[in-house]
Amino acid sequence: DFFYTGLNVPRRTSNRLGVNVTLLTADSIPGLNTMGLSLGRVDLAANGGLNPPHHHPRASEIFYLIKGTLYVGFITANPTHRLFAKILTAGDVFVFPLGLIHFQWNIGSRQAVGFAILNSQNPGVVTTANTLFGAVPAVLSDVLAKAFQLDVATVEYLQQLPWQNP
Amino acid sequence: DFFYTGLNVPRRTSNRLGVNVTLLTADSIPGLNTMGLSLGRVDLAANGGLNPPHHHPRASEIFYLIKGTLYVGFITANPTHRLFAKILTAGDVFVFPLGLIHFQWNIGSRQAVGFAILNSQNPGVVTTANTLFGAVPAVLSDVLAKAFQLDVATVEYLQQLPWQNP
Amino acid sequence: DFFYTGLNVPRRTSNRLGVNVTLLTADSIPGLNTMGLSLGRVDLAANGGLNPPHHHPRASEIFYLIKGTLYVGFITANPTHRLFAKILTAGDVFVFPLGLIHFQWNIGSRQAVGFAILNSQNPGVVTTANTLFGAVPAVLSDVLAKAFQLDVATVEYLQQLPWQNP
Amino acid sequence: DFFYTGLNVPRRTSNRLGVNVTLLTADSIPGLNTMGLSLGRVDLAANGGLNPPHHHPRASEIFYLIKGTLYVGFITANPTHRLFAKILTAGDVFVFPLGLIHFQWNIGSRQAVGFAILNSQNPGVVTTANTLFGAVPAVLSDVLAKAFQLDVATVEYLQQLPWQNP
Amino acid sequence: DFFYTGLNVPRRTSNRLGVNVTLLTADSIPGLNTMGLSLGRVDLAANGGLNPPHHHPRASEIFYLIKGTLYVGFITANPTHRLFAKILTAGDVFVFPLGLIHFQWNIGSRQAVGFAILNSQNPGVVTTANTLFGAVPAVLSDVLAKAFQLDVATVEYLQQLPWQNP
Amino acid sequence: DFFYTGLNVPRRTSNRLGVNVTLLTADSIPGLNTMGLSLGRVDLAANGGLNPPHHHPRASEIFYLIKGTLYVGFITANPTHRLFAKILTAGDVFVFPLGLIHFQWNIGSRQAVGFAILNSQNPGVVTTANTLFGAVPAVLSDVLAKAFQLDVATVEYLQQLPWQNP
Repeated sequence: DFFYTGLNVPRRTSNRLGVNVTLLTADSIPGLNTMGLSLGRVDLAANGGLNPPHHHPRASEIFYLIKGTLYVGFITANPTHRLFAKILTAGDVFVFPLGLIHFQWNIGSRQAVGFAILNSQNPGVVTTANTLFGAVPAVLSDVLAKAFQLDVATVEYLQQLPWQNP
Repeated sequence: DFFYTGLNVPRRTSNRLGVNVTLLTADSIPGLNTMGLSLGRVDLAANGGLNPPHHHPRASEIFYLIKGTLYVGFITANPTHRLFAKILTAGDVFVFPLGLIHFQWNIGSRQAVGFAILNSQNPGVVTTANTLFGAVPAVLSDVLAKAFQLDVATVEYLQQLPWQNP
Repeated sequence: DFFYTGLNVPRRTSNRLGVNVTLLTADSIPGLNTMGLSLGRVDLAANGGLNPPHHHPRASEIFYLIKGTLYVGFITANPTHRLFAKILTAGDVFVFPLGLIHFQWNIGSRQAVGFAILNSQNPGVVTTANTLFGAVPAVLSDVLAKAFQLDVATVEYLQQLPWQNP
Repeated sequence: DFFYTGLNVPRRTSNRLGVNVTLLTADSIPGLNTMGLSLGRVDLAANGGLNPPHHHPRASEIFYLIKGTLYVGFITANPTHRLFAKILTAGDVFVFPLGLIHFQWNIGSRQAVGFAILNSQNPGVVTTANTLFGAVPAVLSDVLAKAFQLDVATVEYLQQLPWQNP
Repeated sequence: DFFYTGLNVPRRTSNRLGVNVTLLTADSIPGLNTMGLSLGRVDLAANGGLNPPHHHPRASEIFYLIKGTLYVGFITANPTHRLFAKILTAGDVFVFPLGLIHFQWNIGSRQAVGFAILNSQNPGVVTTANTLFGAVPAVLSDVLAKAFQLDVATVEYLQQLPWQNP
Repeated sequence: DFFYTGLNVPRRTSNRLGVNVTLLTADSIPGLNTMGLSLGRVDLAANGGLNPPHHHPRASEIFYLIKGTLYVGFITANPTHRLFAKILTAGDVFVFPLGLIHFQWNIGSRQAVGFAILNSQNPGVVTTANTLFGAVPAVLSDVLAKAFQLDVATVEYLQQLPWQNP
């Protein structure tokens, strides 16, 4: 089918991050097969809902904010690590280039809603912290400690936490 | 830049078709360059606003309706010419496959607004009737008469009309 | 197999449009699978045979005329709708860019024959008038009337006509 | 421009190989730029005109014979080296897959003419023998002798011959 | 030019991570332009040299270890976060799929050397920790604290550390 | 799986050409499927081991020499046939552009070892002489005689020789 209904229904954001992502890919709309597109709805809880830093291994993204106020940004690759960030209000559009880490943070006092537009029928989502600290089986704690300049005890504490995906 | 503002502002639709399309490509957001995406806002006047039959020569499309009630559809290629049509209400999503002719028609009693998501930084828009009857210089009227099974006088009448693009 | 025979045999063009298109795709020559090419023969009846306005959703085209005299053209996308047209005689080559509407019209007094070269194993053909007025089920007549600036009665008359494909 | 004229004019084939190839790329028809297509005319002298073994580094090919009788073929890659060959007469179509070595040999008693259809605006032509024995500067003769199981004197004799391209 | 020399020379790894990456792209070998390939040498110090978790936004990777003993791995995208890890010794080959986070960790008692093979002339490298904690200007600490389940003080401590790239 | 072991083990090169190529594609490492990469090990016998002129129909190549001294080169397409050749020693890198004929020749007094990096999961190998003179069934000897400026007897002698692939 070529159809999906209900993308305007607000999603629950009562979780640790205060975020809910509904991603429509070729799995949910078979008509997207070979079309090179997918679409996600992002709900962010008032006062700090966070779509945490993540990247899409197989897609660029346009983000369109329809409600609320967000602080959004992406960071360029080595060696510059330049942060391109912006405060968005309703009606604003922002581009997250292919494969770069980006985030959306609700700095407003009400629920925010945006749409993520992706040029792949199966873009993938790699949530950075969840992937590294919530991997199954766990990544050797020495690796993460050295990479993040954290002590091993802190890494192992993080690794036993639950890592709920957006 | 990676940013655009004001896509939430309603556009005027007081024209013959009752439609207004704002298309953001790499021309309007330089950061879209090489990203393989563009985004359009479609405003449709109450009671019959029409984004008339058209296709995109270089993109597939996801259409997301945020307000109003539309009759939308696309038609498959030869030899079947099968119409896939649907009445959409707010929150509905529809797919228009690469290069196929499609349309959106406002059958509701208030302004409708949707978003067209395209997987090219420069998708192009070929509005079917406007392209054929409003070409400059004009296509030989015999060609159009035979193709459309119209008499030449009707074709020539159509060719001297104004053909405003959405 | 990698082989097809008989593409030099003239095709019958005794139909309303005076045209006959034989398209070799990966369906007719399995060896074309993944090769990104197809080839069509176009026969056009003397004195007005017409390959009516159409586009290919997934291919660019080179057209090579081996016999006869044609008026051919394509029309650019919005907003210009510029017609690039030319009278071709045997030995002439013309390019129809990806996804743009184009046509071939026999203005000579004998049968014409040309070859359409396409860079997809399955380019698709969308014959404009046939697709819009011959869709099954029919497109709402109000939509076509408004798009083409025709009255509804004319549209409904057209919709009940037979729309034979080239 | 989108136009070229004169591809139907017979080319001179009075050279060692008895062949003349006219290739239309984006250099000769600027409108082919980004269109992913090119077209070549191949004239082959009666009784042995040869378009010698060659490949296209950036294109698949459809070959269409409009006049004459040819023995054509291509050879698959390692390890099979299977020859797919066929005698073609006017109206026959043959496929040469991407990057494989192929040839056309006129076994008829009159001039033959075919068209090569390629899915790149700049496909390239690597004529096998000419490339290896006519390279400038010359390839070390020991390399060619060992590869072709020829003695060095024969290789060096070949290397000082003229290697006219088709 | 098509040439580079000295990729066999051991690189200094006396830095915090104990790693040195030499990446040859179209910048260092102009002949790689449009060829869709690049090649990197990775030197890892004995006893814990680490090429820390990172991904390539525009390339898949084959890693080939020529000397030493490494613990390597990559982690799949949401929702599984499955770690595919392996201990490699000299002569082993491992694949890191497009855009996924991966790492190499020297668990042996001598210098290790491997080669990273990438299918882009400009693959990009996003070192995860460095990108997030070393961004310029800094990412809001609240964002990183919430994403990583760290307190803000720890995040801000990390943000003022130096983040040397491999 | 994403893993292969033993690429560092020297291969036997006691054959006519003195060469042994081990190519890892998606057949040998299933994890390479859709990754657009493959990797080959090339062993060349001392004093004249030859990876004979060949091309890859679906890949560009980076060659990295880890041991020995080679004379390597590639030849550009028609009409220039320019040879780009170089003597490589351990640590040197050379690029062979997409689809062009290239070779590696051991001019040193010990075994040489290099790695071929290719941007396709299934690049294909067309060894020029083997393909033309060892085709099954055989190419007409007249075709090869005319193409290579050899007499027919020599061609037929070559055609009955064994043509072992590298």
